[in-house]
Amino acid sequence: MSAGALEAAVLVTGDEVLRGRIQEANAGYLGRSLAERGVRTRRVMVVGDAMDDLEAGLRELLAAGAGLVCTTGGLGPTHDDLTMAAVAAVAARPMVLDRSALAMVERRSGGIRRRFRASEETLRMIREKQAMLPDGATVLPPIGTAPGAVVPVGGALVVVLPGPPWELRAMWEAATASDGPLGDLLARAGRPAAPVLRLEGVLESEFVEALAALPTSVQEDVGVYTKEGELEVIVGASSAAAVVSQLDESFPGALFSRDGRTVDEMVAGLLLERGDRLAVAESCTGGGLGQRLTARPGASRWFMGGVISYDDDVKRGLLGVPAAVIAEMGAVSAESALAMAEGARRATGADWGVSITGIAGPDGGTPEKPVGLVFVGVAGPDGAAAHELPRVRGDREAIRRRSITMAMHRLRRALEAVAPA
Amino acid sequence: MSAGALEAAVLVTGDEVLRGRIQEANAGYLGRSLAERGVRTRRVMVVGDAMDDLEAGLRELLAAGAGLVCTTGGLGPTHDDLTMAAVAAVAARPMVLDRSALAMVERRSGGIRRRFRASEETLRMIREKQAMLPDGATVLPPIGTAPGAVVPVGGALVVVLPGPPWELRAMWEAATASDGPLGDLLARAGRPAAPVLRLEGVLESEFVEALAALPTSVQEDVGVYTKEGELEVIVGASSAAAVVSQLDESFPGALFSRDGRTVDEMVAGLLLERGDRLAVAESCTGGGLGQRLTARPGASRWFMGGVISYDDDVKRGLLGVPAAVIAEMGAVSAESALAMAEGARRATGADWGVSITGIAGPDGGTPEKPVGLVFVGVAGPDGAAAHELPRVRGDREAIRRRSITMAMHRLRRALEAVAPA
Repeated sequence: MSAGALEAAVLVTGDEVLRGRIQEANAGYLGRSLAERGVRTRRVMVVGDAMDDLEAGLRELLAAGAGLVCTTGGLGPTHDDLTMAAVAAVAARPMVLDRSALAMVERRSGGIRRRFRASEETLRMIREKQAMLPDGATVLPPIGTAPGAVVPVGGALVVVLPGPPWELRAMWEAATASDGPLGDLLARAGRPAAPVLRLEGVLESEFVEALAALPTSVQEDVGVYTKEGELEVIVGASSAAAVVSQLDESFPGALFSRDGRTVDEMVAGLLLERGDRLAVAESCTGGGLGQRLTARPGASRWFMGGVISYDDDVKRGLLGVPAAVIAEMGAVSAESALAMAEGARRATGADWGVSITGIAGPDGGTPEKPVGLVFVGVAGPDGAAAHELPRVRGDREAIRRRSITMAMHRLRRALEAVAPA
Repeated sequence: MSAGALEAAVLVTGDEVLRGRIQEANAGYLGRSLAERGVRTRRVMVVGDAMDDLEAGLRELLAAGAGLVCTTGGLGPTHDDLTMAAVAAVAARPMVLDRSALAMVERRSGGIRRRFRASEETLRMIREKQAMLPDGATVLPPIGTAPGAVVPVGGALVVVLPGPPWELRAMWEAATASDGPLGDLLARAGRPAAPVLRLEGVLESEFVEALAALPTSVQEDVGVYTKEGELEVIVGASSAAAVVSQLDESFPGALFSRDGRTVDEMVAGLLLERGDRLAVAESCTGGGLGQRLTARPGASRWFMGGVISYDDDVKRGLLGVPAAVIAEMGAVSAESALAMAEGARRATGADWGVSITGIAGPDGGTPEKPVGLVFVGVAGPDGAAAHELPRVRGDREAIRRRSITMAMHRLRRALEAVAPA
């Protein structure tokens, strides 16, 4: 551990991650959770399932000064699942059968039985393998079937976590809660950060230029990240006021969130506050806006659904977009976007309708209507409007994702503009 | 480089990745692309933007035996963009202004000018910074504004790639094409793999058990990855026939793809072949099935759209699900799924309708209808059917993603079952 601040590292295990067979998301989750607690993640390393690779990776991360190393994956019952043994080897501690871990595993072994259709003898072996921990470890209760552990290694701590994202997240939340085994360490080691600031419609280069007016010590306390048309700003608690006031001056109206809330949370909150309900009409995004709106629980209180009007027949038939609008202005036009948003509202009985229509590419572009041309419409109790989005370079996926984010902001602004219900 | 086979490593750069602010996907893309060429990725390392971290990461990957190291990110015009300089330092080569790179950057500097709203003097500096490469490097033409490079370091090659995924992918494709600077190396070093085999409805543990009947040399030539209810099997070309025949015997009908095609490609191909068109009706997935179906270009030839019927009013109103079905059987029932699939077909005029309705949680479950209960319906020219999906443990996102995959398979099976049009 370097003198001073606690630094973390993450060791991700799994051949399937290295071969790009599964999209790894645990390291990012842990990095974000640690950053929110003021702990910097210095490195992430991904290695395969072989014992040599696991041990070498762990040793290197510890040697590079990490005081806290989280491992993910390799806790299952098969011969490939070697993470606990690798941690024990690096810690120079024997593996011992942990009775409390065994009791926890036994309580959850119905799932193992179903999953492996195993004999009683095999089941007993599987249970005992999963309850073998490095001597001196603190067991983390299983979320799925495998317990995790916190293992002291020299002056550092290794936190052994499972691979499935939902198991990892639940185990990490429990371990880092104020009464969890890592609660004290993180409360002591963390440097407080202000809530994330979020800006829309500002380029990173413009942001950096605006910040140049502030003292260097403040500038160095700021991290900025571009994300689908938004900027996320992480700033130390002591520098937050100066940064906020500079941003308000340089970019009036752009700083849409000062309390860490995302545009998704704000839209949900505004609709709930008004008791209003929302519907979508999606063309080029194919349902992605609806998927995003329903990603968080509780959406049924304000989201009704809508129409995926990929084909023009559906725009006419289910949304009532006039055939003449499509024929004269085209399906990718402000006029079509407007009619789609109004149609979503009318077809579902929702208070608000949001539409997206555009050319996501790579084919289908013309000189007049190039790939990347996207319109968003918003219809509400007080009327409707549609706008062309600023064009961005990018592939099909990037254009679709960014269009969805921009549609969220159009909707947020419209909701903010109307008087409270 | 270890004697024998070429091994690769990936160095991902960026504080925003370590802090979990952006979801890293480049390493997985590169690992998969290399695996398809028979090259194993031994390690992925993520480090921050500081010069020390970049240099240390690169040195460690080279010391661990990687013959090919890909770096991603840190090629922009700001002072944080230090990857080229770090590679030069590790290679012990001076940075030199590459005239051909400068010409490439100049041709693309309209984008820089718009992005940075910079003076001519600033623009010239930005252009020249992006054209500075380690002496002896082979320039990779820019996709966005920054060129990449292939840099010899000792006996290894470092491939310096940009961070934005679409730029990275296009540059990597060009560099690894048969006439690209990496084409020969990869053709020479790769070990041929058979096309990916894909199974549905088989557990990893059952798969491993079935494989135990085969010679050890064959078993060791097989990698298996679980992915949202599917198994992906990578197998060496020489072992493929034995594995396929064992799988056909152990799991009749489960091996749905022998030529690498995904279920998404198969569904699109079957619809195109028949000249049929598809519509969706989505409840708990909120549009995610439509988004997935439209993720690949060309979907407009067979995808019409559909209805996101999150609210029961929309199920009744736009899909014509009888109020009595919802009242008596519930919106999450085989009967509702059936009526939704038929409704999607009827409302849009499509030949096929697919529906998903379920309880994605974490709230809304009851003892009779617990979280994770999901029904899928498929309606086609020859009739309609709906089924409960096998239940899985998981969080809201996992349940939704897996339901979408299972719906794809229900649709594939229905398309395969009908006679060719």
